[in-house]
Amino acid sequence: MDYLPVDLAQKLSQFAEPWAPKVIARLNDYEIKVVRLDGEFVWHTHDDTDELFLVLHGRLTIKLADGEVTLRAGQLFVVPRGVQHCPVADGEVQAVLIEPRGVVNTGSAGGPRTAGYDDSLA
Amino acid sequence: MDYLPVDLAQKLSQFAEPWAPKVIARLNDYEIKVVRLDGEFVWHTHDDTDELFLVLHGRLTIKLADGEVTLRAGQLFVVPRGVQHCPVADGEVQAVLIEPRGVVNTGSAGGPRTAGYDDSLA
Repeated sequence: MDYLPVDLAQKLSQFAEPWAPKVIARLNDYEIKVVRLDGEFVWHTHDDTDELFLVLHGRLTIKLADGEVTLRAGQLFVVPRGVQHCPVADGEVQAVLIEPRGVVNTGSAGGPRTAGYDDSLA
Repeated sequence: MDYLPVDLAQKLSQFAEPWAPKVIARLNDYEIKVVRLDGEFVWHTHDDTDELFLVLHGRLTIKLADGEVTLRAGQLFVVPRGVQHCPVADGEVQAVLIEPRGVVNTGSAGGPRTAGYDDSLA
């Protein structure tokens, strides 16, 4: 039988809302998510895990406790566990996130921008 | 201070040999690798882990025990643990691999195409 690949652009085409990561695949106990980002998020920390950002479209700055990194399409960065960070999208950004199952977008900060778990595209 | 992103194309520009994955980043106990593929590899299995392929350039078919999947740029596939597979690149393919630290490219098959561990680009 033929299996279907997971097409990143096709998954991103299925939703418009920013800051709402969607699980699209699983790798052992990790989840691969796509997300749209627009504007500034909130400062937060993931105490128990690193978090990988891979930009597919647009320009994303991740402010860190002691500096920042700017990512364009085809560039990735791993925020180390325990490092406070704040993603800032310069216009609309499309990105892949990879992290262990169950990680919440606002980490230990919580608050109104915490996204619900969504694996409807997986 | 400004941190530098990991640029996938820049990492791939630093080597030419196919079937020699290079670690470019780490995510907890996982490794992010880039690899060039060209032609047919060998059938092998990773008994203890899933393996993620994300194609950046070219066309990659992964033959599986009971079928196959074909990936183009921007498409990914996770080969489940224990599933025998054989990557076949139709011309040159550039791809990202993600798997736990220490996974060997030929899995339990071994043999002459087993690549040495290379994190010189990390």
